[in-house]
Amino acid sequence: MAQDQIIKRKIVENAEKVDSFIVEALKDRKPKILYEASRHLIEAGGKRLRPFLTVKACEAVGGNPADAVPFAAALEILHNFTLVHDDVMDHDNLRRGNPTVHTKYGDAMAILAGDLLFAKVYDIMAKNAPASMSPIKVLSAIRKTTNATLTLCEGQALDISFPDAGDVNSKDYILMVGAKTSALFSACAEVGATVGGASDEQIEALGRFAWDAGIAFQIVDDILGITADEKKLGKPVGSDIREGKKTLIVIHALENATPEQKKVLMSALGVEDASTESIEAAVKTLYDIGSIQSAVKVAEDYTKNALKMLDVIPDNPAKDELKSLVEYFVKRDY
Amino acid sequence: MAQDQIIKRKIVENAEKVDSFIVEALKDRKPKILYEASRHLIEAGGKRLRPFLTVKACEAVGGNPADAVPFAAALEILHNFTLVHDDVMDHDNLRRGNPTVHTKYGDAMAILAGDLLFAKVYDIMAKNAPASMSPIKVLSAIRKTTNATLTLCEGQALDISFPDAGDVNSKDYILMVGAKTSALFSACAEVGATVGGASDEQIEALGRFAWDAGIAFQIVDDILGITADEKKLGKPVGSDIREGKKTLIVIHALENATPEQKKVLMSALGVEDASTESIEAAVKTLYDIGSIQSAVKVAEDYTKNALKMLDVIPDNPAKDELKSLVEYFVKRDY
Repeated sequence: MAQDQIIKRKIVENAEKVDSFIVEALKDRKPKILYEASRHLIEAGGKRLRPFLTVKACEAVGGNPADAVPFAAALEILHNFTLVHDDVMDHDNLRRGNPTVHTKYGDAMAILAGDLLFAKVYDIMAKNAPASMSPIKVLSAIRKTTNATLTLCEGQALDISFPDAGDVNSKDYILMVGAKTSALFSACAEVGATVGGASDEQIEALGRFAWDAGIAFQIVDDILGITADEKKLGKPVGSDIREGKKTLIVIHALENATPEQKKVLMSALGVEDASTESIEAAVKTLYDIGSIQSAVKVAEDYTKNALKMLDVIPDNPAKDELKSLVEYFVKRDY
Repeated sequence: MAQDQIIKRKIVENAEKVDSFIVEALKDRKPKILYEASRHLIEAGGKRLRPFLTVKACEAVGGNPADAVPFAAALEILHNFTLVHDDVMDHDNLRRGNPTVHTKYGDAMAILAGDLLFAKVYDIMAKNAPASMSPIKVLSAIRKTTNATLTLCEGQALDISFPDAGDVNSKDYILMVGAKTSALFSACAEVGATVGGASDEQIEALGRFAWDAGIAFQIVDDILGITADEKKLGKPVGSDIREGKKTLIVIHALENATPEQKKVLMSALGVEDASTESIEAAVKTLYDIGSIQSAVKVAEDYTKNALKMLDVIPDNPAKDELKSLVEYFVKRDY
């Protein structure tokens, strides 16, 4: 638990440096409302895991962590751009406990704010690289970032084109999470490592580390969406179940339920007005089938694989922090 | 007229090369529907003026025009990204005589298709620069492109935040057109010149040339929106008047109309269900006041200024084509 507190404090310390950079990068130009809308979600919070990954990957390969801050800021801005647009597409009204950008500023301004954020990613990367970084490496960072964005767009397109996909299996789930979470996690680690002057082998290892860590992170996110305390979660317990979200847990449950158990699950899964009792019965059933436990096991396996990738990185405090980060992913309670 | 035919043929020839590149860059990956949506507007046509500007700026400073083709393609893709998102924001259902992307694929897929197109801009620039171009110059092209995009977002935000701005004056109009049209025209010329190995002085001159040319282009576009033949225009005559679009013509008219003339104008301007008779009376009044003639004069002045900027470029066929392009902007009838 103490270990968790330490890593959480480190993440916050890193976030402060990155946020100062972001505030400066997104300060008002005309029209003011566009910049307000662009800052809205970022100012509402967020864990800043991606900037931590970026900066620590840089440090772990022997780079100066300060050099990676602009890139960490750019990648956090990229993450927020995708969230702003996703919320418009999904008609979600709340995020991080706040009204989403389109809820406050309207769809048109939210689309535009997202576009501006996306442009800022490249603005920062092309202008704020440290003097020690060669233009070839800056271009490499831009390529990695762009590849991740293309994959993210493809993942989101898959998501919105098959909202009712009945026969999603665990392989589809892992592919989707890879596209929607791991691609950007991986780009963060690779870009950080690139800034830090890593070898190709190190860059690849850190990218694979972050890819698997991203999958573990998302699986745990899905578990918490079912098991976590409402206050810590920031959204009503059971909302993932009411939405009928096809998580690894739900996929496992539907594949392994008895007809009786299936009946209990189906009276809550994707039923918008499901009662608290139905939700509680469904959650109990998910435990009975062993689906929660199975998802925990899968997350732990991905974590183990992720950690193994770090073998090619020499031991140092930043590498230890990367390890703690991923261990924290699985242990966290929100 | 023969001169116009020649430049139109040159534009088409250039478009063919650029379009081949675009088709390859946007070919299907998964999910197919995302790539179809991304290609929809580009495949519907468009004059490809921006790629022409890019390639000819490269050639005019002594560069190999083929080197500029990927950048020209990227900048045309950027233009189309902004149109796809603008159409969602403005709820426009037709463009280039075809259903807009969101009309065909829904808002969510159109937002995503725009995002994908935007990412492709950087994908192409970071991957397809000619071997002869230094990474520093590629980064410079990326910076110019990104600056133009930020300005475009700001221009669009101004546009959507003040839809009913009553007291827009000609200075506001020129600023808006600068942001929404000239910034990208200018980036095209600067990027093309950068690819071609131009001096800073040449890059700046070509940027200013394209900026003023962009303003002339947009003013003529507004004139044609009022005076052109419906078939050539691809949208109903009078739709700009019915929408109450604040063009230089309308601004001039409202500043110079007699009370009697103002009455005629106001029964058509911004009146969605204005009759054909009201529209015709309004158009006649715009001529009576001299507003159309005044706008033609302003466009000619910007054209003259634009052409003057080319003095620092040594005489060559590509420079002549740039001149013809801008002269064609003002003379074209659609």
